[in-house]
Amino acid sequence: MDAQTCLEKLKYVGVLAFATVDQEGAPQIRNISAIHYGSDSMYFFTARGKDFCRELLSDGRVQILGYTKFKEMIRLSAKVLPAPEDEQEKWISTIFAEQPYLANVYPGDTRKIGIVFQITGGTFEYFNLGVNPILRGSYTFGDVKSHVKKGYRITESCIGCGNCLEHCPQCCIEPGTLYRIDPTHCLHCGACFESCPAGAVERL
Amino acid sequence: MDAQTCLEKLKYVGVLAFATVDQEGAPQIRNISAIHYGSDSMYFFTARGKDFCRELLSDGRVQILGYTKFKEMIRLSAKVLPAPEDEQEKWISTIFAEQPYLANVYPGDTRKIGIVFQITGGTFEYFNLGVNPILRGSYTFGDVKSHVKKGYRITESCIGCGNCLEHCPQCCIEPGTLYRIDPTHCLHCGACFESCPAGAVERL
Repeated sequence: MDAQTCLEKLKYVGVLAFATVDQEGAPQIRNISAIHYGSDSMYFFTARGKDFCRELLSDGRVQILGYTKFKEMIRLSAKVLPAPEDEQEKWISTIFAEQPYLANVYPGDTRKIGIVFQITGGTFEYFNLGVNPILRGSYTFGDVKSHVKKGYRITESCIGCGNCLEHCPQCCIEPGTLYRIDPTHCLHCGACFESCPAGAVERL
Repeated sequence: MDAQTCLEKLKYVGVLAFATVDQEGAPQIRNISAIHYGSDSMYFFTARGKDFCRELLSDGRVQILGYTKFKEMIRLSAKVLPAPEDEQEKWISTIFAEQPYLANVYPGDTRKIGIVFQITGGTFEYFNLGVNPILRGSYTFGDVKSHVKKGYRITESCIGCGNCLEHCPQCCIEPGTLYRIDPTHCLHCGACFESCPAGAVERL
């Protein structure tokens, strides 16, 4: 798995959920399908009068989620910006040409109320609960290099008792002088953290 | 359409997107399918060690989104709480019995790292872009009575010029001495707001 494959998978899902934060700091979510995909970029259409547009312009942080027919969750964290002024018309035409239903929603010239935002970098998280053990990964693209820090880590305070492994739903902890969590198969459920008698498991 | 029908439709969608806000005020989104539906309530399972759980316990605001096979968007805004302590085991058993795949993710006793949250009231927004004109509605249930205030309204400053109607993608504005937006068919795109020469359109 890599960032390009994740992007390609989102393209096949089609209708994605976009989460933002509103002016009261509350979560907001909606489906977006008016998206054009580049090889390592996304362009999406909305209308300037929507709260969604206001949230993107004032904050810009977005998490995008797609659920594939293979039961994979693909999440993209990104900062979005309006596409350059002189490219707006081009991207609107591209998106409307690719998705003819949009002309029913915004017929004729009314599409001019639209604005296209672009994503040219971000962090993907891939999560598959349908395989055994479960599988996850994180991949960046564009000018974003930082991976998402989530889950748990066993520190040097480990006493090697094996309690964590015994409580782990996915048995993704390797025994040793210091036990070690395999992040590829970790649910982030916290069972190791709660069961460690030495307080040796720390949250990332 | 009503709140019960919206809840029923979410049940058929199965895998829903849940948006929350994290400790940095950033949007967070993930798929949840470990849900039990009551007649006017939802109970869902997660693990105590997940960031999702932390966000629910510290803030509690959530927006839940389902996209039906009939191309309807159904969004639920709610405040969630952990189910009562003495009901946790019952709801975990119910959810695991309804969805056997969960026992592969949390086999045997490892499900004890789980926690069930409940939603007993909230506001639904229904949005259908696949009909002409588009259709939207808002419905509350439980002890939540306030509808979502979104979109636009034409005030008494209206000069009756008809510019708004001319620019409206959905022709959902009725002419009159004072023009009036029909909120049932409004996209919230803002074309009326931008095109009114009298500044008579206000954002709700």
